[in-house]
Amino acid sequence: MAGYNLEGIKAAPLKDDVDIVIPTIRSLDFLEQWRPFLQHYHLIIVQDGDPSIKIKVPEGYDYELYNRNDINRILGPRANCISYKDGGCRCFGFMVSKKKYIYTIDDDCFVAKDPSGKEINVIAQHIKNLETPSTPHYFNTLYDPFREGTDFVRGYPFSLREGVQTAISHGLWLNIPDYDAPTQLVKPRERNTRYVDAVMTIPKGVLYPMCGMNLAFNRELVGPAMYFGLMGEGQPISRYDDMWAGWAAKVVCDQLGFGVKTGLPYLWHSKASNPFVNLKKEHKGLHWQEDMVPFFQNLCLSKESDTAAKCYMEISKMTKEKLTKVDPYFEKLADAMVTWIEAWEELNPPVKNEAFVGA
Amino acid sequence: MAGYNLEGIKAAPLKDDVDIVIPTIRSLDFLEQWRPFLQHYHLIIVQDGDPSIKIKVPEGYDYELYNRNDINRILGPRANCISYKDGGCRCFGFMVSKKKYIYTIDDDCFVAKDPSGKEINVIAQHIKNLETPSTPHYFNTLYDPFREGTDFVRGYPFSLREGVQTAISHGLWLNIPDYDAPTQLVKPRERNTRYVDAVMTIPKGVLYPMCGMNLAFNRELVGPAMYFGLMGEGQPISRYDDMWAGWAAKVVCDQLGFGVKTGLPYLWHSKASNPFVNLKKEHKGLHWQEDMVPFFQNLCLSKESDTAAKCYMEISKMTKEKLTKVDPYFEKLADAMVTWIEAWEELNPPVKNEAFVGA
Repeated sequence: MAGYNLEGIKAAPLKDDVDIVIPTIRSLDFLEQWRPFLQHYHLIIVQDGDPSIKIKVPEGYDYELYNRNDINRILGPRANCISYKDGGCRCFGFMVSKKKYIYTIDDDCFVAKDPSGKEINVIAQHIKNLETPSTPHYFNTLYDPFREGTDFVRGYPFSLREGVQTAISHGLWLNIPDYDAPTQLVKPRERNTRYVDAVMTIPKGVLYPMCGMNLAFNRELVGPAMYFGLMGEGQPISRYDDMWAGWAAKVVCDQLGFGVKTGLPYLWHSKASNPFVNLKKEHKGLHWQEDMVPFFQNLCLSKESDTAAKCYMEISKMTKEKLTKVDPYFEKLADAMVTWIEAWEELNPPVKNEAFVGA
Repeated sequence: MAGYNLEGIKAAPLKDDVDIVIPTIRSLDFLEQWRPFLQHYHLIIVQDGDPSIKIKVPEGYDYELYNRNDINRILGPRANCISYKDGGCRCFGFMVSKKKYIYTIDDDCFVAKDPSGKEINVIAQHIKNLETPSTPHYFNTLYDPFREGTDFVRGYPFSLREGVQTAISHGLWLNIPDYDAPTQLVKPRERNTRYVDAVMTIPKGVLYPMCGMNLAFNRELVGPAMYFGLMGEGQPISRYDDMWAGWAAKVVCDQLGFGVKTGLPYLWHSKASNPFVNLKKEHKGLHWQEDMVPFFQNLCLSKESDTAAKCYMEISKMTKEKLTKVDPYFEKLADAMVTWIEAWEELNPPVKNEAFVGA
């Protein structure tokens, strides 16, 4: 199991099993630089904001594009669960995909180089992460034991070495770190220059802040839990779309016995967003996360919740019960979570052997 | 708090607050190479095996040396809690030290270089790790937020950013990885060549395999939990001394609200021990760890256990209750754990404000 042979992975591994989801309000010129790594994959572009704007996609890319009119047409009244004027709209792309894996990336992100100067193939690394097991039950001090050249160290129980199926691969960012507005304001010049050459499993029962900038996941396993919430125009909060999805999806992975990895691959995050704009968007979130994180840390799902969709419905119910006292917004969010699952199931009717997935 | 200024740390930081504990059966020539980093520190050498052998210590080092006759004289009948013919005897050095910090190292370990070719100052890094807080309640995706050039990422609750006091710093090894005998046999040529430039907190509630080769800790906080068990001659098990200490100490840290870090610094582990000898020493451990790890994972200490010594007494009681059914050896081990605490308290009488430590 350790030493899993990954030599067969080429520049476009599993190209028929991956959709790349990109939320955008502008030209997708950033894809020019990504050609060597992304051009063989199918893109799902979710156009945010004014649908009359024409998004320019570099030639040669195979894509489907959805603007707000498309979302409204496809989901009907359920379209109100998809955020508007917020990157959280990307989750619509997760829902319409029919592929096993999703890779989602922001349009201000570029190819990074490893310390040897080699350009990093983000998708190849995410697929390695997703196709090798995770080890959420015990920490391996030499990090991912399934990577070439390493293994489980002395004192690692053999019964735990098979690991569990990996559902999420969270990649990182060189250059502009993913800071909140207060940290951006305090450290405007801080850049992430440290390449940490590791992938690791986030242990069971532990939460982390999932960033949507460079993220891959297995939608067959956890797609319904990857709801990016109700953010942006008409909502009191923004910039917590990926955090909400990350907390919920981690709880779902822990419940269903799937693993979550973080670390490699890095991409190059080119520009810091405006900290004053961000502060306005996220100030309620900065406050509410003091309740949201303990809420997810203490969530205890019932045994009956044995699929991602069932888990998510239960989380919705508990969101209403426990978080509405923090702010009435959470009641609206909880309803949108139910709408999201209904829409997901309409577009992705359960297959006969779905129960097998969680086995 | 983040960005903690560490510029004041020189080649021999906190030299009056650190003892270096080295178990050995041979000459300590390996210390020649360590001079630039270790010569200013006081050594506690625990001589294992035949006390009539003369251990050669390189000139210029300040040290005290204890052989088996010394241990017997100092501890009297309680000396039977200290392992013989096993590296676990090092914990005697922890007990006789009067310093705040212990650094313990094996005598087949040498100075490693970082990727830039610079020699690594292991002690300086361990002290950085121990003197900056840990973050066991939530995972920071950019690793140690107290390191220069990094911080807490977006989505990290502000209430958790103060962190907790760090009790243990677990360093790693380049060249020969710390594998068990079966893995050594299967992969005789595997070498660890990957320098992972990170320090991270092992989250609360998560266990890890603690290796004693390159280890530092705050003995005021967790000294009594750093018992390396009953191994070696006269015992059915060996090579689990550090594992036992690591599991127990992690449970104690979780109970008392202290943090455990792993990662940097690396040292150079020069030679693999004989896998056939190791297999003989550890074969019972390989089997028993399937029970020992779940035992520690499920341990629930009472609120009354509010010091490391009290926690350890409770773990001893539970070891007897829960593990004696695995093998009668654990009854003997549980008794030795009590003896260890009695000896610790005799040599380290509680100070008036000890209760404050766990506050």
